Amino acid sequence: MKIFIAGIGLTDFGELWDKSLEDLLRQASAAAIEDAQLDFSDIEAIYVANMGAGTFEGQMHLGALVSSWFAHHPPAMRIEGACASGGLALMAAEDALESGRYQTVLVVGAEKMTDVSAAEATQVLAGAADIQAEYGSTFPGLYALLALQHMEAYGTTREQLSAVSVKNHKHGLDNRHAQYHKEFTLDQVSKSELVAAPLRLLDCSPLTDGAAAVVLTSKKTARQTVEVIGRGHGMDSLTLAQRESLTSIGATKRAAKQAFAQAGLKPTDIQAAEVHDCFTIAELLALEDLGFFKPGEAGQATLEGKTTYGGQLVVNPSGGLKASGHPVGATGIKQVAYLTKLLREEKFSTVLTHNVGGSGATAVVHILQSVEATKKKRKSL
Amino acid sequence: MKIFIAGIGLTDFGELWDKSLEDLLRQASAAAIEDAQLDFSDIEAIYVANMGAGTFEGQMHLGALVSSWFAHHPPAMRIEGACASGGLALMAAEDALESGRYQTVLVVGAEKMTDVSAAEATQVLAGAADIQAEYGSTFPGLYALLALQHMEAYGTTREQLSAVSVKNHKHGLDNRHAQYHKEFTLDQVSKSELVAAPLRLLDCSPLTDGAAAVVLTSKKTARQTVEVIGRGHGMDSLTLAQRESLTSIGATKRAAKQAFAQAGLKPTDIQAAEVHDCFTIAELLALEDLGFFKPGEAGQATLEGKTTYGGQLVVNPSGGLKASGHPVGATGIKQVAYLTKLLREEKFSTVLTHNVGGSGATAVVHILQSVEATKKKRKSL
Repeated sequence: MKIFIAGIGLTDFGELWDKSLEDLLRQASAAAIEDAQLDFSDIEAIYVANMGAGTFEGQMHLGALVSSWFAHHPPAMRIEGACASGGLALMAAEDALESGRYQTVLVVGAEKMTDVSAAEATQVLAGAADIQAEYGSTFPGLYALLALQHMEAYGTTREQLSAVSVKNHKHGLDNRHAQYHKEFTLDQVSKSELVAAPLRLLDCSPLTDGAAAVVLTSKKTARQTVEVIGRGHGMDSLTLAQRESLTSIGATKRAAKQAFAQAGLKPTDIQAAEVHDCFTIAELLALEDLGFFKPGEAGQATLEGKTTYGGQLVVNPSGGLKASGHPVGATGIKQVAYLTKLLREEKFSTVLTHNVGGSGATAVVHILQSVEATKKKRKSL
Repeated sequence: MKIFIAGIGLTDFGELWDKSLEDLLRQASAAAIEDAQLDFSDIEAIYVANMGAGTFEGQMHLGALVSSWFAHHPPAMRIEGACASGGLALMAAEDALESGRYQTVLVVGAEKMTDVSAAEATQVLAGAADIQAEYGSTFPGLYALLALQHMEAYGTTREQLSAVSVKNHKHGLDNRHAQYHKEFTLDQVSKSELVAAPLRLLDCSPLTDGAAAVVLTSKKTARQTVEVIGRGHGMDSLTLAQRESLTSIGATKRAAKQAFAQAGLKPTDIQAAEVHDCFTIAELLALEDLGFFKPGEAGQATLEGKTTYGGQLVVNPSGGLKASGHPVGATGIKQVAYLTKLLREEKFSTVLTHNVGGSGATAVVHILQSVEATKKKRKSL
C-alpha cells in the first residue's frame, strides 16, 4: 500500500502568547485539511502528538479535544514519545492506513511551552529522560556529555558546532513560520552564553509554541504529489549510562536502516533532510548516524558548506529546531510538512526526516519522494 | 488477519507504596511475556498506556523506559486518551499487527496514583475533561450530572445505583488482584458519604496503583486460545455541554457498532463483559449503550440480578473499576487480560470489554472469543 501526503498545515512558531494550545491545534489542522482540498467530514481518524500539555497546563485527552471539532467525531488518540511524539504519531497513523482500517487521517502535533517559566519548562522536558536514573539532569546537560565525547573521540571543534547553528539560522530566513529570522556569525555562536559546557545558548533549540499537521491518505489522486516511501522507528536505552556508544545514537541507526531498506535507497540518494538538531551536536550525530557522513566527519563537512545549498545535501532547510523553533509535539510533523512543501515546489525530489526523543532513546525516520521521481525510479528498475 | 491474545500479566491493584511505576510496568510485562511462553527477544514492538505519569511524577517517554529493558530495543510508543488509554494502546497495537509491520507485540498499561494526595490526583484526572470549557469540574461532578439526567429521564433510583456497587464488590472477591475484597449492602452504599449528589463514596471507583499487560500476536499456534474478533473506537465531544444526549454515551454506541459488526455478533451473544464503571451510573449507561438493555432498564435489571452469575450476562466479573480498582492506564488492558483468563478457564466463550475516557469522549470496545467457540461459529455459518 502507498501512503501519500495529501495536505500540510503549519502555524507560526514562536512565543505565541495570544494563542492557546487548542488554537494552535485547530489552526494547523484546518490548514492541512484545506490544503488537501478536503472537508472535515473526510477525516476518518485523528492522531495527536503532544508531550507535555498534561503538565504545562493540565490538559490531557487531546485526541478527544481535536475530535470534538468534527461533527462526525472521528476516532482519535494522543501519542507521546517526548520530542519524537510527532514522528511516532505519524508511525501510528501510517500503521492504521496500512492495516486498511482508514484511508484518510489527520496527524497533528502541538506544544505550548512559553506560558511557563524557562525553569518550569526545563523540568517538564526533563521528563523525557529517566527521572530516577538521571535525576536532576537537564537536556542541555545530557547533550553536553554527548558533545564532549564526540570532541574527545573525533576532535570535533567549537567552530564546527557553531557552523551548524550559523547554517540553520541562515536557512531559517527562508521559512516564514520560523521562530527566528536572524543570522549569526561563527564567532557570535562560539561566544554566546555558556549553558552546559561545551554547549552555549546558540547551540540550543529554543522553547516554542507552535503546531503542525499533515493529512495522510492511501487514496491516489492527481493531487497526491508526495509519497512516503520509507519509514523506520528505532530505540535505544533511555539513560545515557546504558548506551553502547556515546558518539552515536543507536536509535537513529536502527530507524534509518528500516527506512532506507523500505525505500530501496541509500544516503547518497537524499537531497535534503530535516534532522533533529535540538542541540548543534545532535545534528552532527544525526548526519553521521543517518549515513550522510562518516563518524567524526560531519563537523568539518558542515564547516565546509557540504550541508547547505550547493553542497552534498541540504540539511534543515527550514532552519531546523534551532532557528525554526521546537514546539515538541509539532516538530516531527513539521519536518514532514516543510519538506513536502519543498518537494511540491520541485526544489528536491527525495528527502528525509529524522525526529528524536530524549537524549536519543527514540528515533523516527521518514523518506519522502515526489511522485514524479518515484515513477522515474520505478521505470529505471 | 486474526489477532490472538498470547499472554496476560496483572499486578495487584491497590495502594502499592513499595512499588514504583517502573516496577509495576515491569512486573506486568514480564508476567505477560512469561505467560505467552515467549522471551523478551520475541517482542517486536511495545505500546505503553498511561495517562498521568508526566504530572504524577514527571516521567514521560514511557515507551523508551519499557523498551530499555529489552536488549534488542524494540520500537515503543506511549498512547494516551485519559482513562481509555489502555483500550487505545490495544487499538494502535492491533493496527500495527494488521498492517503486517509486526507479528508479536506487548501492550502494557500502568498508573501510579497514590503517591500524591487525593486532591492532587483529582486535579490530574480533571485533565481528562476540557479544562477551559469545564474549568474546575471534577469527574465525580461530571458523572453526577449524567446520573441526575438518567434519574430524571428514566426514574433510575438510588437503590439501582447501589446495586451496581454491591454486585461489583461481590465479584471482586473472585479476583485475587482486586484492590478491595469486601462486600457491601445496598444500604451501606446508599448511605455512604456524599461526594457529588447523587453520587456517594461507594458509587466511585478508587485511586489505584497497578499495571496490566497483554502479548498480542498474529501468529496462530496451539497455545493461542483467545481471539480478538471485533473492535471499535468511538468518540463524542469532550464537553458534556456539546453532547446530543446526556442519558447515553455516543462514543460507546459508535465503538460497539463497529465491534459487533466486525464480530458478526449481537449483544445477546455476549456472556460476560468488563465495562467501564468508573461510577455506578457509568455501568448503567454502558449496559444500555452497548445494547444489553433498553434505555432506562439497566438499573432495574442490575437490581434483579440480571448482570451477575445466573442472569442475562455477567458484568464486571473482575469487580470492575469499583472493586478491582482503576489504575487509569492499566484499566483497558486489565479488562482484556482478566476476561482472557476466564475464557481460558472456559467460564465463558464470548465476552466484551468496554473502556471509556473522560466523561465519555472516548470509548473502545473489544469482543473476544475462545478459539473453540470461533471454530464452532464458523462451522455453523
